[in-house]
Amino acid sequence: MTRLEEDPGNSRPIGIFDSGVGGLTVLRQLLRRLPSERMIYLGDTARLPYGTKSRETVVKYSLKNTSFLVEKGIKCLVVACNTASSLALEALRQAFPIPVLGVIQPGAERAARLTRNGRVGVIGTVATIRSRAYEEVIRTVESSIEVVSVPCPLFVSLAEEGWTQDEVTYLVAERYLEPLRKRDVDVLVLGCTHYPLLKSVISGIMGEKVRLVDSAEEIAVQVRNLLDQNGTRNAGRERCAPKVYMTDSSPHFLELAQMILSLPATEFEYVDL
Amino acid sequence: MTRLEEDPGNSRPIGIFDSGVGGLTVLRQLLRRLPSERMIYLGDTARLPYGTKSRETVVKYSLKNTSFLVEKGIKCLVVACNTASSLALEALRQAFPIPVLGVIQPGAERAARLTRNGRVGVIGTVATIRSRAYEEVIRTVESSIEVVSVPCPLFVSLAEEGWTQDEVTYLVAERYLEPLRKRDVDVLVLGCTHYPLLKSVISGIMGEKVRLVDSAEEIAVQVRNLLDQNGTRNAGRERCAPKVYMTDSSPHFLELAQMILSLPATEFEYVDL
Repeated sequence: MTRLEEDPGNSRPIGIFDSGVGGLTVLRQLLRRLPSERMIYLGDTARLPYGTKSRETVVKYSLKNTSFLVEKGIKCLVVACNTASSLALEALRQAFPIPVLGVIQPGAERAARLTRNGRVGVIGTVATIRSRAYEEVIRTVESSIEVVSVPCPLFVSLAEEGWTQDEVTYLVAERYLEPLRKRDVDVLVLGCTHYPLLKSVISGIMGEKVRLVDSAEEIAVQVRNLLDQNGTRNAGRERCAPKVYMTDSSPHFLELAQMILSLPATEFEYVDL
Repeated sequence: MTRLEEDPGNSRPIGIFDSGVGGLTVLRQLLRRLPSERMIYLGDTARLPYGTKSRETVVKYSLKNTSFLVEKGIKCLVVACNTASSLALEALRQAFPIPVLGVIQPGAERAARLTRNGRVGVIGTVATIRSRAYEEVIRTVESSIEVVSVPCPLFVSLAEEGWTQDEVTYLVAERYLEPLRKRDVDVLVLGCTHYPLLKSVISGIMGEKVRLVDSAEEIAVQVRNLLDQNGTRNAGRERCAPKVYMTDSSPHFLELAQMILSLPATEFEYVDL
């Protein structure tokens, strides 16, 4: 095979899964950077959230989600959920013969490169913070970096309630972010796909000088690099509408999904896993 | 069979399930009123919360939970979860040949009896409020009662964060409860097993004259009546420690469970459903 265009396998879709609809921020970035790729997204809305649950449970659900996507013939997998990326990446790589990318590594690497004073903050779910996954990758890049990690369990509910510019959210965020301000971090990783929805409140409290890292943006670059390196970019030039599956399709999730993705043509489908 | 004592079936346990650990408030009340009964509790912590999910999903999980308990030989089922009680009771009664009790009816009946001015408030999850289940039962008792229903999605997260006497919780509660105060309800149903944990904040905002109805207390009375009517009370006199199963056993849930149940001897066991 001499030319990428000749491999029909390259037109296979990219699979993305998340515990819910928050990972659609990742899908949006992927569509922006890789407009000719076909994409299948699975939101495990029936079992969300993952962030309060144990490693065993998160691994089990991640394997189930990936099986579903692999049966759809995906050429690589993007784990858009921070919690699943922290806890299940190894298990997925062992179980499936396709490239598997998580959101932790790109976000952590970006943060390690951005910091000037060597103090990086990480916020995420209880499970993500407990796993110390961001810390490990940041320290691999530069072992002298001090990492201050804080779980922010209420942020997902506040974002889902739509209180993105609210007095209550401000009060909660002030309390959660206090230790990060005290330690004077100059970079803050938004280690949960919902948190970018609260960017303005978080940024208002941390101050303009603190750079916020959104893993969704970073992972899209890594996926493009991977496809290029493996020679598996889709040669087609037409834009493909993504396909979005959800394990629970209550109106609540559909509204949120449409708000986050803001692509009217998207097809949503319920799937029973 | 002339005497209850002669039926060995009466020593079979009572089954209770909830989406998580909140339903342990129901187990606690049952243990208080029926100390000689054996009890098996299943908390579906791997799939919680139910309150944001669709009817189909909640019914599916409820059937799965009940199958597990029926295999353990329970003589009757208590659905401690308000959301599952709103959405899945009929499906459970059709699928299983044992008496099935939910928390909606006892709470609604109590509220209908308590009100003096004919205005009752109900707070619960999005799914419970959307189902209008409380409203229907209250109206069956007394059709002239005005029911004001408000979903309070952040209350579960606030209770689980342990912010039960907090400025933030007070602010959130003030906002959620505003329409209930405006309509001058004199009874308020706490239509979610977590909400009793926020009783003091809720009561502080609603005022002393508003009576709060906690379904956990009401359901225990109904279960006792049912066992008496069916002649299925356990004749044994010794106290039995309850058995508690959870589908996810992260430290977070175990801590919460111990806080709510406060019975040191309780045996917790993980089960993969």
